[in-house]
Amino acid sequence: MKKISGIIAAPFTPFNQDHQVDYERIEMFAQLLKRNQADGAFICGTTGESSSLSHQEKIRIFESWSNHRHAGLQLIAMLGGTCLEEMKELAVVAANLGLDGISILAPYYLKPNLDQLIEVCAQVAASAPDLPFFYYHIPSLTGAYFSMRVFLEKAEAQIPNLAGIKYTHSDLMDFSLCKMHRDGYYSMLWGSDEILLSGLVAGADGAVGSTYNYALPLYQEIIKNFNLGNIPEAAALQKLSMKMVDLLMKHGGNRAGKGFMKIIGVDCGPCRLPLTSLTNEQISQLEADLHEINFPEFCSKF
Amino acid sequence: MKKISGIIAAPFTPFNQDHQVDYERIEMFAQLLKRNQADGAFICGTTGESSSLSHQEKIRIFESWSNHRHAGLQLIAMLGGTCLEEMKELAVVAANLGLDGISILAPYYLKPNLDQLIEVCAQVAASAPDLPFFYYHIPSLTGAYFSMRVFLEKAEAQIPNLAGIKYTHSDLMDFSLCKMHRDGYYSMLWGSDEILLSGLVAGADGAVGSTYNYALPLYQEIIKNFNLGNIPEAAALQKLSMKMVDLLMKHGGNRAGKGFMKIIGVDCGPCRLPLTSLTNEQISQLEADLHEINFPEFCSKF
Amino acid sequence: MKKISGIIAAPFTPFNQDHQVDYERIEMFAQLLKRNQADGAFICGTTGESSSLSHQEKIRIFESWSNHRHAGLQLIAMLGGTCLEEMKELAVVAANLGLDGISILAPYYLKPNLDQLIEVCAQVAASAPDLPFFYYHIPSLTGAYFSMRVFLEKAEAQIPNLAGIKYTHSDLMDFSLCKMHRDGYYSMLWGSDEILLSGLVAGADGAVGSTYNYALPLYQEIIKNFNLGNIPEAAALQKLSMKMVDLLMKHGGNRAGKGFMKIIGVDCGPCRLPLTSLTNEQISQLEADLHEINFPEFCSKF
Amino acid sequence: MKKISGIIAAPFTPFNQDHQVDYERIEMFAQLLKRNQADGAFICGTTGESSSLSHQEKIRIFESWSNHRHAGLQLIAMLGGTCLEEMKELAVVAANLGLDGISILAPYYLKPNLDQLIEVCAQVAASAPDLPFFYYHIPSLTGAYFSMRVFLEKAEAQIPNLAGIKYTHSDLMDFSLCKMHRDGYYSMLWGSDEILLSGLVAGADGAVGSTYNYALPLYQEIIKNFNLGNIPEAAALQKLSMKMVDLLMKHGGNRAGKGFMKIIGVDCGPCRLPLTSLTNEQISQLEADLHEINFPEFCSKF
Repeated sequence: MKKISGIIAAPFTPFNQDHQVDYERIEMFAQLLKRNQADGAFICGTTGESSSLSHQEKIRIFESWSNHRHAGLQLIAMLGGTCLEEMKELAVVAANLGLDGISILAPYYLKPNLDQLIEVCAQVAASAPDLPFFYYHIPSLTGAYFSMRVFLEKAEAQIPNLAGIKYTHSDLMDFSLCKMHRDGYYSMLWGSDEILLSGLVAGADGAVGSTYNYALPLYQEIIKNFNLGNIPEAAALQKLSMKMVDLLMKHGGNRAGKGFMKIIGVDCGPCRLPLTSLTNEQISQLEADLHEINFPEFCSKF
Repeated sequence: MKKISGIIAAPFTPFNQDHQVDYERIEMFAQLLKRNQADGAFICGTTGESSSLSHQEKIRIFESWSNHRHAGLQLIAMLGGTCLEEMKELAVVAANLGLDGISILAPYYLKPNLDQLIEVCAQVAASAPDLPFFYYHIPSLTGAYFSMRVFLEKAEAQIPNLAGIKYTHSDLMDFSLCKMHRDGYYSMLWGSDEILLSGLVAGADGAVGSTYNYALPLYQEIIKNFNLGNIPEAAALQKLSMKMVDLLMKHGGNRAGKGFMKIIGVDCGPCRLPLTSLTNEQISQLEADLHEINFPEFCSKF
Repeated sequence: MKKISGIIAAPFTPFNQDHQVDYERIEMFAQLLKRNQADGAFICGTTGESSSLSHQEKIRIFESWSNHRHAGLQLIAMLGGTCLEEMKELAVVAANLGLDGISILAPYYLKPNLDQLIEVCAQVAASAPDLPFFYYHIPSLTGAYFSMRVFLEKAEAQIPNLAGIKYTHSDLMDFSLCKMHRDGYYSMLWGSDEILLSGLVAGADGAVGSTYNYALPLYQEIIKNFNLGNIPEAAALQKLSMKMVDLLMKHGGNRAGKGFMKIIGVDCGPCRLPLTSLTNEQISQLEADLHEINFPEFCSKF
Repeated sequence: MKKISGIIAAPFTPFNQDHQVDYERIEMFAQLLKRNQADGAFICGTTGESSSLSHQEKIRIFESWSNHRHAGLQLIAMLGGTCLEEMKELAVVAANLGLDGISILAPYYLKPNLDQLIEVCAQVAASAPDLPFFYYHIPSLTGAYFSMRVFLEKAEAQIPNLAGIKYTHSDLMDFSLCKMHRDGYYSMLWGSDEILLSGLVAGADGAVGSTYNYALPLYQEIIKNFNLGNIPEAAALQKLSMKMVDLLMKHGGNRAGKGFMKIIGVDCGPCRLPLTSLTNEQISQLEADLHEINFPEFCSKF
């Protein structure tokens, strides 16, 4: 099974001022990722406000990305979701579009036990048996605090196309044990941009995150330095990443990311509720704060 | 605004063996509630596996209940959900069908703060302005651990059709303070069947729950005794309810409820994942256990 | 084994302005409980800031209460704590003083599993084998979220003097199942004053709490009405209790209780850190707020 | 203020078969740390079962370590606890013994807010004003989930001898922001042995942990390679650390550490409740498992 690695952006879903999906803008987003040489895109993830999208909207978003993809951009479709029937349909859509992978998270209303979770994954993965399947581990949002190492041990017999985990949790030992399992067989994708370097020393194959949309050059530099063994340089850049994320948190967290997108010139519009959007004034303040830490030189270029 | 009160069943969604919704069975379910004189039905709630249903399925389920309703059965449609656009559409459906109320729970993936939650509620409620709107408070599943008293204080200015709360949480003081707010203006619907009596002394107007599907006579007897001031009798019956719920927990919790439905003769089929279903053997064991505590005399009759 | 029942106050520990225990004031406190006909006192509990006391101070406090007790006041000594050796010593002290019962909570730093917890309880209980032993269940502070029904089932073989549970948690079904276990053998003491009535209908034998120090007449009236079957009257009084507790929460929670003590004329001084004390101004405001809800007529008299 | 850095072991408290402190063994323990060139010892920490020790026992343990210390071994005394009066006394003891630092954790029964926590720290630190004061951040056990960066910002004005944080939590960004605060002024001691390398790239000055007692050579090798920029070698050794910790978890967690001590020849006896001890058979199994991963070559030598 083809490995997925590198820096994978988790795109925002562009909305117009009526909070309807602005499919046109997806092309612009794909160009941004191309110019900045992202290795992939994780479509309709948490950053993409997946849970705020309807089933039909997700299908059209997958189609749009498929239409505007370029060579070298690996596209993973995030299908979850709490409704298994819908996830299975979306898996078929992704396969028909020839995307590079699919992913789901644990159903997050009725909470599964580990066996039930694996059965859910198995049914979705079986709906697109030729696509790599990634489990999206983000227990702070799903409540599914399972050991991923145990997940792999139990799931692999039932999911032939199990390819790896998008790991958005702080248990670095569990993460490493997953990487060590079957001698590195699984693609382990690290989901905490602000501590990417800690993930890299723990064995990450790649990374998926929202700040890779607008600050790709910074992380490419971190990885380059890491690969050369220049740890002090990598650590200094990582600290800059933390300062930037700290500013985002101060300005509203995930929803502030769309403000950042506007600053770099790829306006993705407002957020849908339950997220609220930054005002123009708040975006200006964020921009000023970013200048103060000399961040703009590391922003994605558009 | 019309008050909603009494015992409101939270119906199961019937599935066939392929896990597709069995709309025919909804008529059977409505007859069950009629024969046992339920005061209402809370459609597509947690018991109805709402989060496992597609948008279109929810619409058809609301239509089916509307087609088979009888006089005296108050129908509340549970619309949530994490996608605001879908919830607003469902509110319009409910209004067009002439149902008696709508309800949503807090979006449970991206977690709102209280102001964001109220804004979500306000937009859904405004989509069906003539229907009573009930907030469904179930923080153990949504993570929305807000004080409901504060919710009412802040929300009422923005939601003219705010009618009450379906309260599935253990904070009886908060529940009572809601009831005391504006001298009892809001319909406070208690969501913990097994401790209904404790809810009644705290001021419940009515109750919504899953065991009212198959054990209505028991709870009607509890309420009758409570209203007569026969507390020892009411408490003794409540203890029987606990014994029964304890058996259900032992046999698998919510998913065991569909086993109970089969026992009383209204087979609702299997559960959808992430819930798994009881085997026939397990259902037989549950039935035997219920006989041992002499429960069948209090079962709903079909 | 003698049953413990009725309304049991959980006294504050009086400190002087240097935050040293003011042993003289304990006599005053004992007189307060006598005049207001409390059925017992739960010494060095959460309200008594147990965890902020040294081992030697606890011993002297037990002695003081023993010296000033009166007929009819059942004295339960709370011994926990995280250090088993100290708890065992305190159990011997309580036995030598002829107190009426002992109690511990789950060690709250290193968290025990259920078997380990029972072993801790067994060793402490065995140090005072002739005294009734009460487990103090307060999982919000200890993290020990075990089913108490299962605790009783497993512990009773190892703890001959197991007498009951002081239950400060919201799981009323678990509470009732404990009461039903062995046909009501165990004394179940309800720990949530503001919803006492819900505890009474669930089978409480008695109640232990901090507001019984300064508002005993209110709760005696609630119980009287409950026993007579006058539920509406009991519920109305309970609502007054909630309003009062709501004011306390608004004014700082547990630490506000010492302000209330000063208002009724039994000044217990400041709190020890990590609790901070109300200012005189805050106490005046609390007093004014209590007048506004006509609470003073239900205050304990001194 | 003198910086504290390097690898600091968190010693076990030796008990005899009657579960009484075996003060003689502390000398043996100090020799172990000397032979293996530990940089320090964190006395009466979580590993030392602090919460299971009496006040007098802690004093005698501090004295014993003071008597048996050697040049180059920095001794930090962990004083917490929930009783401020006792912590202040212990601070004076530590100062009189000429130890190198003191530390407390957040009171863990009555939970402080951040201001209250800082006031507790300030009072203890002021009792030994010439000793470096370390806050021990371990929210999984104390419940004190505060941002440590904000703690530093607010606390430094009130605690002149604030020297750093023993950080046992997974928030690497918060950890790094603490290190960045005041340009690296504070000693940041990493508390998760199994992911030491991730802590090092995040800026750790040193590390405190239980596995440094019995596996010091492994971690010294990790740090050596890290400092040389040999990240692949460091990462490979860190993976071995994880395998070892994984075995410990499998064999009972913290309590398994005393089994490990016996294996390397420094028998520290049983644990006190609520911890239970490994049987000899379990220790043999642990030893066999350690051989299987070729771990013994990295064990501390005695």
